[in-house]
Amino acid sequence: MRIVDFTKQQISRRSFLKGASFGVGIPVLGGVLAACGGTSTLASTQDTHEMTPAAQSQPATMTADEMDAMHEAGIKTFLAGNSTQGQGNQPLAPKIENGVKIFELTCAKTPWEVTPGQKPEAWAYNGQVPGPELRVTEGDTVRVIVKNELPESTAVHFHGVMLPNKMDGVPFVTQPPIKPGQSFTYEFVARNPGSHMYHSHHNSTKQVGQGLLGAFIIEPKDKSKDPAYDLEYTMILNDQLGGFSVNGKGFPATSPLTAKKGQKVRIRYMNEGQMIHPMHLHGLPQLVFAKDGWNLPQPFMCDTLNVAPGDRWDVIVDCTEPGAWAFHCHILAHAEGEHGMYGMVTALVIAE
Amino acid sequence: MRIVDFTKQQISRRSFLKGASFGVGIPVLGGVLAACGGTSTLASTQDTHEMTPAAQSQPATMTADEMDAMHEAGIKTFLAGNSTQGQGNQPLAPKIENGVKIFELTCAKTPWEVTPGQKPEAWAYNGQVPGPELRVTEGDTVRVIVKNELPESTAVHFHGVMLPNKMDGVPFVTQPPIKPGQSFTYEFVARNPGSHMYHSHHNSTKQVGQGLLGAFIIEPKDKSKDPAYDLEYTMILNDQLGGFSVNGKGFPATSPLTAKKGQKVRIRYMNEGQMIHPMHLHGLPQLVFAKDGWNLPQPFMCDTLNVAPGDRWDVIVDCTEPGAWAFHCHILAHAEGEHGMYGMVTALVIAE
Amino acid sequence: MRIVDFTKQQISRRSFLKGASFGVGIPVLGGVLAACGGTSTLASTQDTHEMTPAAQSQPATMTADEMDAMHEAGIKTFLAGNSTQGQGNQPLAPKIENGVKIFELTCAKTPWEVTPGQKPEAWAYNGQVPGPELRVTEGDTVRVIVKNELPESTAVHFHGVMLPNKMDGVPFVTQPPIKPGQSFTYEFVARNPGSHMYHSHHNSTKQVGQGLLGAFIIEPKDKSKDPAYDLEYTMILNDQLGGFSVNGKGFPATSPLTAKKGQKVRIRYMNEGQMIHPMHLHGLPQLVFAKDGWNLPQPFMCDTLNVAPGDRWDVIVDCTEPGAWAFHCHILAHAEGEHGMYGMVTALVIAE
Repeated sequence: MRIVDFTKQQISRRSFLKGASFGVGIPVLGGVLAACGGTSTLASTQDTHEMTPAAQSQPATMTADEMDAMHEAGIKTFLAGNSTQGQGNQPLAPKIENGVKIFELTCAKTPWEVTPGQKPEAWAYNGQVPGPELRVTEGDTVRVIVKNELPESTAVHFHGVMLPNKMDGVPFVTQPPIKPGQSFTYEFVARNPGSHMYHSHHNSTKQVGQGLLGAFIIEPKDKSKDPAYDLEYTMILNDQLGGFSVNGKGFPATSPLTAKKGQKVRIRYMNEGQMIHPMHLHGLPQLVFAKDGWNLPQPFMCDTLNVAPGDRWDVIVDCTEPGAWAFHCHILAHAEGEHGMYGMVTALVIAE
Repeated sequence: MRIVDFTKQQISRRSFLKGASFGVGIPVLGGVLAACGGTSTLASTQDTHEMTPAAQSQPATMTADEMDAMHEAGIKTFLAGNSTQGQGNQPLAPKIENGVKIFELTCAKTPWEVTPGQKPEAWAYNGQVPGPELRVTEGDTVRVIVKNELPESTAVHFHGVMLPNKMDGVPFVTQPPIKPGQSFTYEFVARNPGSHMYHSHHNSTKQVGQGLLGAFIIEPKDKSKDPAYDLEYTMILNDQLGGFSVNGKGFPATSPLTAKKGQKVRIRYMNEGQMIHPMHLHGLPQLVFAKDGWNLPQPFMCDTLNVAPGDRWDVIVDCTEPGAWAFHCHILAHAEGEHGMYGMVTALVIAE
Repeated sequence: MRIVDFTKQQISRRSFLKGASFGVGIPVLGGVLAACGGTSTLASTQDTHEMTPAAQSQPATMTADEMDAMHEAGIKTFLAGNSTQGQGNQPLAPKIENGVKIFELTCAKTPWEVTPGQKPEAWAYNGQVPGPELRVTEGDTVRVIVKNELPESTAVHFHGVMLPNKMDGVPFVTQPPIKPGQSFTYEFVARNPGSHMYHSHHNSTKQVGQGLLGAFIIEPKDKSKDPAYDLEYTMILNDQLGGFSVNGKGFPATSPLTAKKGQKVRIRYMNEGQMIHPMHLHGLPQLVFAKDGWNLPQPFMCDTLNVAPGDRWDVIVDCTEPGAWAFHCHILAHAEGEHGMYGMVTALVIAE
């Protein structure tokens, strides 16, 4: 086994790869790498005037082969499939009573493995980040029972959903906060179809940041108004808990989107973070047909779609080109560093 | 009265609320809160990789009830109506001479109360932040006499307005700078209708940042090309003087928009800041019909509209849903912290 | 000669102007100016909560006349024409063999003069930043031979171009990395016309940040689908190597766009940076007709166009208004500071 000298620390290659690759496990190595790799680029994401001199003054801490090996290890981990614990955004089947679709959400702390080995404490709905997908049909009466097991009060806002004002989830404006140990029941008719969200609206910078967020999808009664598609994916973008993530996981723990050649894939983008994320799909254009659940009067084509906090965009990808196509935020500091890809990176894999 | 122990400082609850709520009065308490509340989230707005560990390591400085009380106090102050001094964006009636609409703007320093008790020194037009609203009609001849009482030179650019090059307001390109104590007269025919702006174009990062900005609205001769509406609001977004603001005020000093059920409200968004602000209205969609004063070929619907620096967007909200609807920037760190909402938060209140 | 006292350093006016104007040469003066001028605004671009107190507490280090002189000097340097060494984005004529258009790109380090006197070490294609413009026609077979003379591995991604998966340029996904000293040949048929890009897709935050980027333009076989235009410019936006830049140069080294009254100018915006850049043209509207090379179903008008990282937008400016029109990013901290304009500033100069 080769030995790499990191400023007087003797670290075996294997332990280094395990602990430090992809810029997320770097604290394991203390401050040594902090000035020269993934974290420094992450920290200066929006401040590239700082980034450039830092990048230029970096000592050559590794050879090209060493760097390549770390990049390769990340790709291999990704392609081997997610080995982290937990999967967010899982469909939650409602109970149905007297025609009402009933969902129960419990807010509680849970460790959440964002990238292999990194488990920050999340504030989660039903132990998932993102919370479970709530999916109903236009015209449904929906009841959501929220139980708060957190040390802070909370409330749930159904972002983008038209509903009676008292169901809007803003403490002291439309309801009292849900105190620790208490519950609150939201009930409304799902009126406006589309890709919506639900999240905390109390101390929200922290609470949404720590994971209290999820997808709320209202399918239209009449599906003929949407473009046709064969399968669909939701991509919930975030930039807080554990760094940059898609559906609660950072590369290499992100899941690839898969399809067969000839299929049409619908992607529902949702940004629950604090920054814009221009999502770039390699090799294939995206047909953008809805904003915030409202169909555009005329869809347009692009390959890079700027998704701002609070935005939802729906697109169709016509899978004409087989292969593994990289798919990532094009703010490169949200996607790749010296030690390999990280954060908001996944792939669309199209089988022949 | 209950006493809250802030790391060995004994502060009464009342003085704490007065001085420190909403993240804007925190400097009053020195560095104590800087690491655990509003300012830390503000400071790391665009750098959530930093934000997350900070959020996680926060000591439990308050109980859920204490946090809720601070949030409630902010909402109550907001709903009670703005008690801060000064109101910006007030219509300025022109003098009319020989058919020319004449406006006089004086640039001078003034304290400006952005949030209750916080009065940074603004650089203002006619003592207002934003400066007075200048409103004319397509085809009008407009004269704007600018007097500079600041310690720096300045110049006024009419952002978005088509005019002769020498009236464009760029020092050393289209005119000499207006030196301290001097005046300059702009004159042009208002050709292109829409929601425009005026602001300093000299040392502009500072001068616009300190308040030298305002709305310049050109109404069309033929109003039939715009969608119909019953009333209108202008929302000038900013992120500099005194923090995040709408029309020169940060929550809870922001003013709610009010309307009656059934009315159509036109909102003119203008971003005079340095950051994007995706504006999210709860409960009701927005029909986006113009960009930078130019009507879109086909309006589109949304609930979250990303407004970038320099952008103007015009939307119609059809007030079908009564109630108090939260209305805020969806970069949550521009809107809420541990001590309550702040910054770019207001409401659309629709009466039955 | 007048002497300006900069906190106990005696600096002649001439040496100050030479070394420190436009916020880019400030490191020459050490930390003295760092707290009071260009760099502080640059460093806090996205964090204006920090910016405001800094701006307010600035000592009056110069008189209005001194500030104006620095602003004027920048404009004069700009209008006199670029005196920096090197020009990026120069058309590269392909060799043609058996009907294949062949381009050769060599990746190597080179000093690159971003602003007068400031020459950071770039990582460049063929010694240019941006790399040479590669321009082909829809249907062409294209071969790009990449030779790597850098100390790191690299790979080239043709951003926006539809091509076979193995030509997509993502190391360990579609190809092995191109090791130092090695070459790799890309070959594909140019299928989708429009304004595209090429750049490194290995350690890309650094490699693209240091200059490995360029324009890849595919002209349509049938030009009748595009709006008519008389001349065209490409504006590649960046915010890394040497600060904020357009086509590899920061103001005053940027080149003005020139046209004659009555001409229609096509502008191809490309963002290769890490931040959004809302590009504002004074005095004239922009007709936006394509996103990422795909024509919009209906063009729309604006004067400020938000260009996100990875985006390409194509616009037409109808040069009806003669004069020198300022043209800049409207995040003002990317464009102007106390010492004058810098970074992402240029002009559209329309002759009668």
